[in-house]
Amino acid sequence: MRPVGQAPVRVLGIDPGLTHTGWGLIESAGSHLRYIAAGAVSTSAGDELAHRLVQIHNALSHIIGEWTPDEAAIEHTYVNKNPAAALKLGQARGVALLVPALAGLPVAEYQAMEVKRAVVGTGHADKIQVQDMVKRLLPGAVLKRADAADALAIAICHAHHRGTRSVLARLMQA
Amino acid sequence: MRPVGQAPVRVLGIDPGLTHTGWGLIESAGSHLRYIAAGAVSTSAGDELAHRLVQIHNALSHIIGEWTPDEAAIEHTYVNKNPAAALKLGQARGVALLVPALAGLPVAEYQAMEVKRAVVGTGHADKIQVQDMVKRLLPGAVLKRADAADALAIAICHAHHRGTRSVLARLMQA
Repeated sequence: MRPVGQAPVRVLGIDPGLTHTGWGLIESAGSHLRYIAAGAVSTSAGDELAHRLVQIHNALSHIIGEWTPDEAAIEHTYVNKNPAAALKLGQARGVALLVPALAGLPVAEYQAMEVKRAVVGTGHADKIQVQDMVKRLLPGAVLKRADAADALAIAICHAHHRGTRSVLARLMQA
Repeated sequence: MRPVGQAPVRVLGIDPGLTHTGWGLIESAGSHLRYIAAGAVSTSAGDELAHRLVQIHNALSHIIGEWTPDEAAIEHTYVNKNPAAALKLGQARGVALLVPALAGLPVAEYQAMEVKRAVVGTGHADKIQVQDMVKRLLPGAVLKRADAADALAIAICHAHHRGTRSVLARLMQA
């Protein structure tokens, strides 16, 4: 992990899902955040599962190749769902974790409450509040889909936390 | 899918799991089956999730590169588990589906009952019966782990079904 306060760090946030995987890229330099790009990868329920996972893989690989992020962050999905839905989500999430790791990026995981707390200030914020704050924190962000806004929120959360972690790491090495 | 009864077809069966992913390779020519290789990829619970998925990816990629299967088959996992366990399994399963698909192999999915029926003759067989039949159907098979036997059972199931499917496909095209 690069030290804080030096060169800007590009963070790729990913909000995985088999039907829609949101992604969002920001640049973080000290406490300053800048929007770079965001979008969503959609796959069709009519396609074979393995083919849908290949589509998610190829899209995320392309995004990483084009935008060269330094680090990735993914929400640690809250599984208050039935086992079949959790398995389905897990398959997309496995690919979303794999692709940045294969590209050599550190991949951080955050609980949904941590993401909300980092973006809105409270772990009990609703989706609309999160999206409103993403727009305020990242002027100029183009949010065509809610998944893209969620992915940017995860990237913002990582940008906040990596500062704290980096300071802790330096203190522990001292 | 290659027509049945011609050149032997190599089938890779995969029994995915985050801690142990079993794999088994057989060659199928008409009704004749031959054991080629089997094993299991194990990852450590102490490692980061993304790193464990990379290990599964790299091992399966290596196996496909070394043994050049023509087709792959995976059990359609029965999710009578809690959502957290299903999510965990799903992540490994996503990678296990992705890797052969990326290599251009067709990936078939089978219900656990179909696998048992194909190998033992009844969908209600237990694990020991399945393993015993795998040993009988594939003389010389080296089964160090139960996961490897399960993966071979999935490959056997696919070898049986692909015959039927191929005949059906020819009838439908006629």
